[in-house]
Amino acid sequence: MDSMTTAPAFPPPDRAATALVALDWGTSSLRAFAMSADGRVLEQRDSAHGILNLPAPGGIAGFERAFAEACGDWLARRPGLPVVAGGMVGSAQGWKEAPYVATPADTATLATRAAAVTTAEGVRILIAPGVLHDPADGVPDVMRGEEIQIAGALVRAPRALRRSRLVLPGTHSKWVEVVDGRIVRFATFMTGELFAILRRHSILGRLMPEAAAPEPDAAAAAFAAGLRAADGRVLAHDLFAVRTLGLMRRLSGDVLEDYLSGLLIGHELAGARALGAAEPDVPVVLIGEGRLSRRYAEALRLTGIPVTAELGNTAPDGLFRFAVAAGLVDEPQGRQQETIDVRPA
Amino acid sequence: MDSMTTAPAFPPPDRAATALVALDWGTSSLRAFAMSADGRVLEQRDSAHGILNLPAPGGIAGFERAFAEACGDWLARRPGLPVVAGGMVGSAQGWKEAPYVATPADTATLATRAAAVTTAEGVRILIAPGVLHDPADGVPDVMRGEEIQIAGALVRAPRALRRSRLVLPGTHSKWVEVVDGRIVRFATFMTGELFAILRRHSILGRLMPEAAAPEPDAAAAAFAAGLRAADGRVLAHDLFAVRTLGLMRRLSGDVLEDYLSGLLIGHELAGARALGAAEPDVPVVLIGEGRLSRRYAEALRLTGIPVTAELGNTAPDGLFRFAVAAGLVDEPQGRQQETIDVRPA
Repeated sequence: MDSMTTAPAFPPPDRAATALVALDWGTSSLRAFAMSADGRVLEQRDSAHGILNLPAPGGIAGFERAFAEACGDWLARRPGLPVVAGGMVGSAQGWKEAPYVATPADTATLATRAAAVTTAEGVRILIAPGVLHDPADGVPDVMRGEEIQIAGALVRAPRALRRSRLVLPGTHSKWVEVVDGRIVRFATFMTGELFAILRRHSILGRLMPEAAAPEPDAAAAAFAAGLRAADGRVLAHDLFAVRTLGLMRRLSGDVLEDYLSGLLIGHELAGARALGAAEPDVPVVLIGEGRLSRRYAEALRLTGIPVTAELGNTAPDGLFRFAVAAGLVDEPQGRQQETIDVRPA
Repeated sequence: MDSMTTAPAFPPPDRAATALVALDWGTSSLRAFAMSADGRVLEQRDSAHGILNLPAPGGIAGFERAFAEACGDWLARRPGLPVVAGGMVGSAQGWKEAPYVATPADTATLATRAAAVTTAEGVRILIAPGVLHDPADGVPDVMRGEEIQIAGALVRAPRALRRSRLVLPGTHSKWVEVVDGRIVRFATFMTGELFAILRRHSILGRLMPEAAAPEPDAAAAAFAAGLRAADGRVLAHDLFAVRTLGLMRRLSGDVLEDYLSGLLIGHELAGARALGAAEPDVPVVLIGEGRLSRRYAEALRLTGIPVTAELGNTAPDGLFRFAVAAGLVDEPQGRQQETIDVRPA
């Protein structure tokens, strides 16, 4: 049989042509995705050149250089490829500011209000704006980057998530309500950043070994104890228990970090309930990766909030959807079916 | 008239004999007081040699050297002077550990359970223990240093404060209930440390100028706004408003620090109410110095908690009282009258 005639009718994924370059460009990292016309990630490049860690000389030239290093060869091979970006690259400290759009906001809103830069080589990059929630009776809240993750979740399960509550754990966790495919309200919790600075810069870190390797059951028990201790929502007081429980040797230094994690995530869950962003028995969808996401899943389970789906990194899907909404790539055929499994609550 | 015969019947304060050396020895500073037999401070020396900043070579030799530098000459002039110390010098990281005593605890308890060290020169130093509150239905809480401040407040107003609520603002603020002259319960809030690490190490500090010089009315208004925003006790969420209010230019960078301060102190007050440590219309006595104490006085006033007295640094009085209780100095004559003004609530 002639090998030429046995070539598959469709090229395998690793040989499909790149149709879009998508950049997830945050504070501390830049992730570049080469995507096919049907929205698959063909190649991913991770760089440490977040907007606060640009290569010399920084500034506009730093953005240009980080971009060229991450994906200049993709564009050299296929000049004219559309490029989209989301995240802090669109902030006031970013390459070009894409001012926040107000809730309610969907992917079409993001596309309409995007900013654009053109590199010295003439490559145009469309940058997604962040989202502002500014209730008349409260203080404003903002997201930048999460709206892309949410767009990605919605494209993967458009029907199931058309009306849903999403939780995005992270440095600044977001609790988001989506109605008719639009972000209608959300609340930020500085849980991840509090954990990091308390661990590293406060007295609470002093009793924690640099590289704790607790026995898994002990770590899980300390996490659950922290979670329970958060119920009264007196955080500045509850935190001191991380020290006293260590001093009194009721918790070993090895698991103090788990107790602190449980305490902070517990405060987030109790706070979300207080704000009406979470309710017992009202299911949520979790968007996130790795250990942190698993901790949230466990915390939600322990506090009686059903998790109907745990999604990983949905940023590439969201950036692709943003590019479709902006008319830079065509709507792929056959993408309307649900591609993630959302369990009934 | 012969000048010799006109000498006062009692020596003036600056020439009175030193009867006690009292050390307020904390994490970041050492304050040494030469005190008279009637409990007055004759001389004060401030050193940066807190227990975490000892002179070389550190360890026991570091403690000896810091002590000799601060008050070796006092002891050289009057060998055999009694010496007492309170604060972190009695912690596990201190010169010698004076283990916590459990509530209820008064000055006599501190004296009974004190630890002692003797220097290479043969000087004996009596070190006060800290206090542990360990309720059966909660987590343990500890203080070390504040029990001396409280003893000092009680000696200055023994009748008025015999049954009272005391607030000691600081890195780790304490809300203390005293009954029959004893500390019966207390709660710690990490307010001051949270402020410091959020200001210095979190994203919230980024919008704050290094040396803010706000217009006083604007600063007061921002402080009051932060205080009000704390009512719902969702700290990790409320904190993010420091950023968003700055980003949206609803607060100028100059006053963001005041808003953060109001928010954290407001959370402390709301938390103290939630724990039953504070109640509307139940008066408190404030023990502290300077700007922080004034902020708490203002916060308590704005939230309807009467302040019946604002005491300054009561540590020297407390250390003197500790020395009396330990039998190192005699009870001064005529010290039973109230020496501070406690206003009726």
